[in-house]
Amino acid sequence: MSVIIVGSIAIDHVKTPAEEHHCLLGGSASYASVAASFYTQVKMVGVVGTDFPPEHRSLLEARQIDLEGLEVAEGKTFRWSGEYEQNMNRRQTLSVELNVFEHFRPKLPSHWRATPFLLLGNIAPSLQMDVLNQIESPRFVLADTMDLWINLAKPDLLRLLPRVDMLILNDSEAHLLTGESNPIAAGREILKLGPKYVAIKKGEHGCLLLGDREKDEFFCTSAYPLERVADPTGAGDSFAGALAGALAKEGLVNWPHLKRAVIEGTLVASYTCEEFSLRRLVRLTEDQLRLRREEFLRYIEPN
Amino acid sequence: MSVIIVGSIAIDHVKTPAEEHHCLLGGSASYASVAASFYTQVKMVGVVGTDFPPEHRSLLEARQIDLEGLEVAEGKTFRWSGEYEQNMNRRQTLSVELNVFEHFRPKLPSHWRATPFLLLGNIAPSLQMDVLNQIESPRFVLADTMDLWINLAKPDLLRLLPRVDMLILNDSEAHLLTGESNPIAAGREILKLGPKYVAIKKGEHGCLLLGDREKDEFFCTSAYPLERVADPTGAGDSFAGALAGALAKEGLVNWPHLKRAVIEGTLVASYTCEEFSLRRLVRLTEDQLRLRREEFLRYIEPN
Repeated sequence: MSVIIVGSIAIDHVKTPAEEHHCLLGGSASYASVAASFYTQVKMVGVVGTDFPPEHRSLLEARQIDLEGLEVAEGKTFRWSGEYEQNMNRRQTLSVELNVFEHFRPKLPSHWRATPFLLLGNIAPSLQMDVLNQIESPRFVLADTMDLWINLAKPDLLRLLPRVDMLILNDSEAHLLTGESNPIAAGREILKLGPKYVAIKKGEHGCLLLGDREKDEFFCTSAYPLERVADPTGAGDSFAGALAGALAKEGLVNWPHLKRAVIEGTLVASYTCEEFSLRRLVRLTEDQLRLRREEFLRYIEPN
Repeated sequence: MSVIIVGSIAIDHVKTPAEEHHCLLGGSASYASVAASFYTQVKMVGVVGTDFPPEHRSLLEARQIDLEGLEVAEGKTFRWSGEYEQNMNRRQTLSVELNVFEHFRPKLPSHWRATPFLLLGNIAPSLQMDVLNQIESPRFVLADTMDLWINLAKPDLLRLLPRVDMLILNDSEAHLLTGESNPIAAGREILKLGPKYVAIKKGEHGCLLLGDREKDEFFCTSAYPLERVADPTGAGDSFAGALAGALAKEGLVNWPHLKRAVIEGTLVASYTCEEFSLRRLVRLTEDQLRLRREEFLRYIEPN
């Protein structure tokens, strides 16, 4: 089944201790859509300016992503600039230019309204709600968020959560949202806010997935072991995209499918970290992904 | 098969944001020996002063730990005092009194010399070497260490490593020892220093186990998910003890047994964190451990 993915589309400038790159394709929708495209048909919703480089559009088209929901607005594309510290675990946002994103109101093609899977990528909760309101009885809704929205738009986020099946966020964001520093306790609190499932990302330390406590639905996995990280930008968006795509591919959402979708998120996110922007993902083949899946399942196998 | 465990035996004073306790049984050998005693016969090597409380000795005896190698020296028992910060991930050592530990020279009962398994718990590498030199062709030698010895006695540690089968240390210590901030890369470097295996502990984030690269021996596991940590003191020692005990119980060391031993370390360490000192471990039953093992294997099962 197909999945609609909404989020930001950005032109990034990223600096790491080792390298610096300009004019990179970035944004939550870009990473999530490319990641999901390894599993299923993706319909992307977002906005770019008239300056959006044709090669970035070509990259998305080459992944067979449906761009009918990609608006081209008069003005400049959203721009983000960030710098990573020595250990790559912390970054500073150097600058943000909203540009065409400032007045973006997502409009979905009317024939997309019956799409069963929906990933509300990391954008303002009010925009996530706008998109959700344009879908007729979706089968499964995933939402990603970040510290910015928890700080600036918490009421909007709290209104959204009861309509979301799964929230995806990282451990420090789960702490910020609930006040609980223990990620498992924070996850339990988030489930009380509406979602049936919550995935708590821990970067290089893997991920927790919490569901129905009565059914003891709990899953924890390490991240794929990378010896070198070139650029972690978009790893979380790639995780969410691959997770949503893998679920949509199955069509049916159940606990085993959810766990396997988390594994797929982990795998694709690991590739994202290997190079800047989407450079590694666009070269990723089905065979490489299959081999890494087999390798990773061996690495986490306790027997 | 039986295991010899050497390390410190301490009287601890521990302060957490929630509680403070005095005169606790602590030390690497205490935690490791009690943890290992759930799996096999433990022979403990260490020193206490004449002030060592009889109830602490009784606790060890109740776990059937052989105390023939426990020296009682004139003077006071080693004392350690520490305080945890709000999130329990960082602690400060408030005071250390070496006391009888200052002039400790381990002497093993001669009929222990053929013991097949040996855990060199966290003490000075020169003392670890002293004990190792008293064992005749051990089958498998594990060593734990810490930042203190990497900083103060690195040459001693480097001399010990080629004679050790498995080194156990945490991620920041692996970084300190090798200069590699990536724990996988650090693990690979450590294997070049002598050990056949290295277990890198990541606290609440679990553990990495690295072995022969040619055979792709790599294992990563999450920690058992605890919603509340009362006191993490001794968790690493308990991990090492249970790992060594579980291996000794099997007798034969191979990759599947090593992975399962890491799981046992993870399980027993989780109990240690639930209460101060050894209070939870002394009440732990075989049935409770079996249930948590089944639960944890379900939690990390990707299918």
